[in-house]
Amino acid sequence: MRFTSEQRFDDGVLERRFTLGDVPGILWTPADTSAPAPLILVGHPGGLDKMYPRLVGRARHAAAAGFASVTIELPWAGDRPRSADAEQARADLRGALQAGEPVSDDIVERLVRPLVDAAVPEWQAAMDATLALPEVRGPVGYSGGVIAIGLRLAAVEPRVAAALLFAGSYVPRAMFEEARRVTTPLLVLLQWDDAGNDRQLALDLFDAFGSEEKTLHANMGGHTGVPSFEGDSAVRFFARHLR
Amino acid sequence: MRFTSEQRFDDGVLERRFTLGDVPGILWTPADTSAPAPLILVGHPGGLDKMYPRLVGRARHAAAAGFASVTIELPWAGDRPRSADAEQARADLRGALQAGEPVSDDIVERLVRPLVDAAVPEWQAAMDATLALPEVRGPVGYSGGVIAIGLRLAAVEPRVAAALLFAGSYVPRAMFEEARRVTTPLLVLLQWDDAGNDRQLALDLFDAFGSEEKTLHANMGGHTGVPSFEGDSAVRFFARHLR
Repeated sequence: MRFTSEQRFDDGVLERRFTLGDVPGILWTPADTSAPAPLILVGHPGGLDKMYPRLVGRARHAAAAGFASVTIELPWAGDRPRSADAEQARADLRGALQAGEPVSDDIVERLVRPLVDAAVPEWQAAMDATLALPEVRGPVGYSGGVIAIGLRLAAVEPRVAAALLFAGSYVPRAMFEEARRVTTPLLVLLQWDDAGNDRQLALDLFDAFGSEEKTLHANMGGHTGVPSFEGDSAVRFFARHLR
Repeated sequence: MRFTSEQRFDDGVLERRFTLGDVPGILWTPADTSAPAPLILVGHPGGLDKMYPRLVGRARHAAAAGFASVTIELPWAGDRPRSADAEQARADLRGALQAGEPVSDDIVERLVRPLVDAAVPEWQAAMDATLALPEVRGPVGYSGGVIAIGLRLAAVEPRVAAALLFAGSYVPRAMFEEARRVTTPLLVLLQWDDAGNDRQLALDLFDAFGSEEKTLHANMGGHTGVPSFEGDSAVRFFARHLR
């Protein structure tokens, strides 16, 4: 983890950009460093620069409650090298949506599984590096972003003690088996009128998760219309499980 | 509203039992009486004595956040006179459940609609009497109990500015039309594995409500397994809308 720049906000939160191998990322730590802060992995759909305003908002909200936050760029997104297969899968998805056709399992599989397979080891490496810093400690929460990445992390990574998932992107049907093996406490956010999201699939996935503590928060509105009070819900959810 | 007894708890909350006409009820007001407290109507399935431990818990939790709470006995429940038709409908429901048969619309209609028709004017009278007290003010929240009573109150009563509904009892299909006319902000709690409740019907009802702000919180477990953190969710929901 090589820090490349840093700035401190007026709330005392320290933001440090870093690279981990070839992967760029951002770490936010609270003003109060008297004790190590529990860590939240801040997920996103890819494209750190474009997502930055929302990510820094979530991280500073979490910092006010005592949490450190870290995020990394996704494979084939932002300034990272592209993948021809991923571009093709994305083009096929756009084609299906524009034609008003159902999105086939084949497209979802080609779109999501290689991304999950490539991203999850990078998020684990980011956890390793961040938890090695004296100002950060586990257990770790995962928040938002591509739901299949959160699902896989919750399934394979025992350091993830709580996961907040946005039911707002595609999950291959074959990954429902992985969902059944998840025992991590979950908070799943569902936008009830999300045009790009299959509501029934989201409810089926919520049902499939094996976790004993899982909560679904469904709100009105589209993909980007999550009400601001859910930010407080998220912080309380992580406070219950990471402290 | 004739007060019949009072006691003060060690947190300063004042509990007063009353009768309003023939209807018994309980009013809880916060220790701090420097300003009138917004009011929450505390719903329940009927049988005040049996429900008292849970009701007083909810009321004291709400009082700590500055809310007054009032509840009244339901028609044909507790010490109030029985109704032969209601007894028959309840017996038919038990019969259907014991036989493993689906609960017919006819049974639900006979079970729920007369109860709603009789109860809602009584709750409105309780609002009138309580809001006339100097220590209480509107707007009013409705919380829990028989969902069809909350639905009707939200539909017809402009003083109800927020309603928390438990998706855990029967609603006649014909009342879905009333749900579409509801514009009150809603928080709907659904127990995902509630054996006595039809999950799909609950999701359909949530979908039917006309409110622009409506949130569904689904949690694991059966009818009485609502997690304690939903008590905090409820208080925050009412704080957003009643202050």
